[in-house]
Amino acid sequence: MKVTDLFSEIREELQVVENELKSVVQTKNQLLTETSTHLLNAGGKRLRPALSLYGATFYNFNLQKVLPLAVALELIHMATLVHDDVVDASLTRRGIPTVKAKWGNGISTHIGTYLFAKSLMLIAKYQKTPLISKVLSDTSVKMCEGEIQQISTTFDIQQSIREYFYRIKRKTALLIAASIQLGAVACGAPAGIHLPLRRYGYNVGMAFQVTDDILDLVADQGQLGKPVGSDLRQGIITLPVIYALAKSPDRNRLVEIVNKTDKETGEIREAISIISDSGAIDYSFETSRKFINKAKEALKTLPDIPTRLTLNRVADFISIRKY
Amino acid sequence: MKVTDLFSEIREELQVVENELKSVVQTKNQLLTETSTHLLNAGGKRLRPALSLYGATFYNFNLQKVLPLAVALELIHMATLVHDDVVDASLTRRGIPTVKAKWGNGISTHIGTYLFAKSLMLIAKYQKTPLISKVLSDTSVKMCEGEIQQISTTFDIQQSIREYFYRIKRKTALLIAASIQLGAVACGAPAGIHLPLRRYGYNVGMAFQVTDDILDLVADQGQLGKPVGSDLRQGIITLPVIYALAKSPDRNRLVEIVNKTDKETGEIREAISIISDSGAIDYSFETSRKFINKAKEALKTLPDIPTRLTLNRVADFISIRKY
Repeated sequence: MKVTDLFSEIREELQVVENELKSVVQTKNQLLTETSTHLLNAGGKRLRPALSLYGATFYNFNLQKVLPLAVALELIHMATLVHDDVVDASLTRRGIPTVKAKWGNGISTHIGTYLFAKSLMLIAKYQKTPLISKVLSDTSVKMCEGEIQQISTTFDIQQSIREYFYRIKRKTALLIAASIQLGAVACGAPAGIHLPLRRYGYNVGMAFQVTDDILDLVADQGQLGKPVGSDLRQGIITLPVIYALAKSPDRNRLVEIVNKTDKETGEIREAISIISDSGAIDYSFETSRKFINKAKEALKTLPDIPTRLTLNRVADFISIRKY
Repeated sequence: MKVTDLFSEIREELQVVENELKSVVQTKNQLLTETSTHLLNAGGKRLRPALSLYGATFYNFNLQKVLPLAVALELIHMATLVHDDVVDASLTRRGIPTVKAKWGNGISTHIGTYLFAKSLMLIAKYQKTPLISKVLSDTSVKMCEGEIQQISTTFDIQQSIREYFYRIKRKTALLIAASIQLGAVACGAPAGIHLPLRRYGYNVGMAFQVTDDILDLVADQGQLGKPVGSDLRQGIITLPVIYALAKSPDRNRLVEIVNKTDKETGEIREAISIISDSGAIDYSFETSRKFINKAKEALKTLPDIPTRLTLNRVADFISIRKY
């Protein structure tokens, strides 16, 4: 099962978003169209557009009102993926070559900014709902802060769980929070509706990233679409690693491997064993579940409509997904 | 003489912009503050903020109304410089090391996007003047198109003057046009004021870039703050080169040098001689002057206030500047 299987209620609307995404990146410049289309075809769960549509179901749902936002959210997400690739050593994402691998750093940088700028054109349409541009510009700044903090803490084995949460909040949770909140805002929802949705999105986003960081260590490479342990390989210290560094009896060996800039596959495997044996994976799944419980708490204050049940199931799925 | 010497009327206001720029990039993240401050201290003419202030003098000048815009414009400009560096081989800009040279591509990409996102937060303040976010988001998209077109036409000796104009319009002229136009818009100016200002800015911007491209070939390296012929070195085909490729009797030798990915200093010197001898530099200065004349024409339709005379002198200066 995939998380997208849960989106059956909004399948048609998501198809409209998909078509709009395709049409928005068509330009006269061949290279630009080619790279953007490559990115679109690389797939992705379209989680952010889906959540914005779900947010909208809680208040006078109107697809036309939420559509530019849904498209803009996916463009922002895609922009961050392309920019990540400039730093990231992985040459594949979701199993296909990255823009960086195919076209280099220069193109990756400009394509990312191009997609981001395109999203601004869509957001500029919401003149009467200034909260949308306010939240998204604030979120974008914080996302960059998260990326930069990630670079500056690479190979830093001293970092705390608090610093880790600071980073994943910015890297992942804030945009997911904004997605579901602003979907409702776009349809005119009051704070009593859009703030609990934001809280739901924030906690689902935190759980999502914690799970992602677990899966980077334990998932099947084929399902993951990228090599196992790629964060570890690059010196990105995630929750399971922080936990194991604090609790494992084999801490010294783990430090040694983490600190190596050029790790062999056998060393990655060994590090993953040390991390698993320390109980770090169980602890991290537990952390993810705590966020999920908070997300579900937030849902309870919202009107009991059918999509509320779906969001509940999405939350459950996030913490148990295998890829 | 420098173009900034012409800005004496608005010196105090520009100082306020400068202080605001400094304060806007202060964050808790040390690396982020350090890189942004490095960029700010690297200087620059602050041409875009200055033009936005001049635009504002044509209609109920109010510094507080134009300030967030002035800061946002410089942030956008800085963002494009940092992103350019990812592609650009030059390791210095304005005589000091680039962010890329000091911190690498990953940081350059994220800092650029960070500055861009910061500008959005400032622009989000203009809820009652939607034209500002509309023009700036449109301009940002086009700027990326220009950058990407530049990459895709590198080493393309077939390109036309038309393609060159398409590129410099996007790379340079549109943001300068937006700067002076939106300065007036921020103070509530009607189309009869802000559209001629835009026309002035567009033509000054085109002249500015043409002159820049001439200076890359003929200026003194010390004054330029980067190696002479750096566009040529990277295969960026500018107006003088396009002209020389069409008119020079030594065309074949020029093609040979331009096509080399690794050019020696002697070859750069030889190429510059061929270009100069073809009359390409004179032709390009003439082209720049034509844009300047159009800029001055646009000014004539505006109220005859003292700053109109300054803008006339700025236009004259742009086409004769030496660095």
